[in-house]
Amino acid sequence: MDVNWGKFITFEGGEGSGKTTVLSRLSEMMKKQGSPFMITREPGGIEIAEKIRTIILDPANTAMDGRTEALLYAAARRQHLVEKVIPALKQGIHVFCDRYIDSSLAYQGHARGLGIEHILSVNSFATEGKMPDLTFYLDIEPEKGLARIEANNGREVNRLDLEGLSFHHKVREGYHMIAESFPERIIVINADRDIETVVEDVKGHLSVTLKGFRE
Amino acid sequence: MDVNWGKFITFEGGEGSGKTTVLSRLSEMMKKQGSPFMITREPGGIEIAEKIRTIILDPANTAMDGRTEALLYAAARRQHLVEKVIPALKQGIHVFCDRYIDSSLAYQGHARGLGIEHILSVNSFATEGKMPDLTFYLDIEPEKGLARIEANNGREVNRLDLEGLSFHHKVREGYHMIAESFPERIIVINADRDIETVVEDVKGHLSVTLKGFRE
Repeated sequence: MDVNWGKFITFEGGEGSGKTTVLSRLSEMMKKQGSPFMITREPGGIEIAEKIRTIILDPANTAMDGRTEALLYAAARRQHLVEKVIPALKQGIHVFCDRYIDSSLAYQGHARGLGIEHILSVNSFATEGKMPDLTFYLDIEPEKGLARIEANNGREVNRLDLEGLSFHHKVREGYHMIAESFPERIIVINADRDIETVVEDVKGHLSVTLKGFRE
Repeated sequence: MDVNWGKFITFEGGEGSGKTTVLSRLSEMMKKQGSPFMITREPGGIEIAEKIRTIILDPANTAMDGRTEALLYAAARRQHLVEKVIPALKQGIHVFCDRYIDSSLAYQGHARGLGIEHILSVNSFATEGKMPDLTFYLDIEPEKGLARIEANNGREVNRLDLEGLSFHHKVREGYHMIAESFPERIIVINADRDIETVVEDVKGHLSVTLKGFRE
């Protein structure tokens, strides 16, 4: 049993759901508490995974097949997991990860129509079955999320942002299906509220969970 | 049924087994016969697949995990298949491919110890189950194959060549297991003979098979 391991907590949601802001605020909270933690996202500065991500997000690669994309995400996930996440968890560091396996299930599995089960199978190979201890899904209507991105000049538009609105609706539908399949692991957070309220909501769940670990 | 499709024929073997030479000679034969054919290998000039291959073969990427490598090969395979192989087959063109799914089964599945069944599962996702109509496995002892590469100044040494001899022995062992599992599809060719004899052997099998297609 991984009793001395840190907890692996992932953050999921559509474009503009506020994951980055929430993670930034949680970082402040964790620093105050003095808990050992790390915030990361795939590819997370892992050289091989960064190179893979460059291929995935290059707007020039419009001919990329959906299954190719899914395999590349799984490859980047694998390398990030073994080089960065697992070593931290083993040292008792809590790892907060911006997107993980559920993103592939929602985007490739459901929205691209490749099948959630098929994508889960490929990702189980990539992760050797390592699932998060807890997942926050920040739920917001795509129209509102994408409007947030447009208002945010700090982030470049990438290939996924260029998908049509119907794609983003399917992503959300996929997340809802996954949340129903993993009710113990996934907490659905209403992200269509002011950011202070969203952050407090997440903090509340997280405090309970992290306290539990220390007992 | 794919009655009007070209036939998909793959060539497998360890380093220095002579695949390139054999394919070059088959090319001459096919041209004489006037049969529509194409010779290719992953990544086969497919831009996305070329970029993926660059990551796999970069000698600087020594930290690459075995599962990451397997997923990247599957991704490059997928893109090459849908962009190049399938469109040719649909036009009735015979496709001769230098390495395909069996390479992953032998190298990643057996030699790297990831499990032939796991690699088959990932690759079945990548190929949607598209298997070759016929596969030639050019069998030679690793010592002899590697000696051929050393004698050949025309080819750069890549990351896989730098593996130890025991790795290449496991690759060969893996190929033998796969050939036993798919006896109808895979023809084992003794590649430890002078190249003329090897080419004639392959041509003999191929003529029978291609004649059969035309009936």
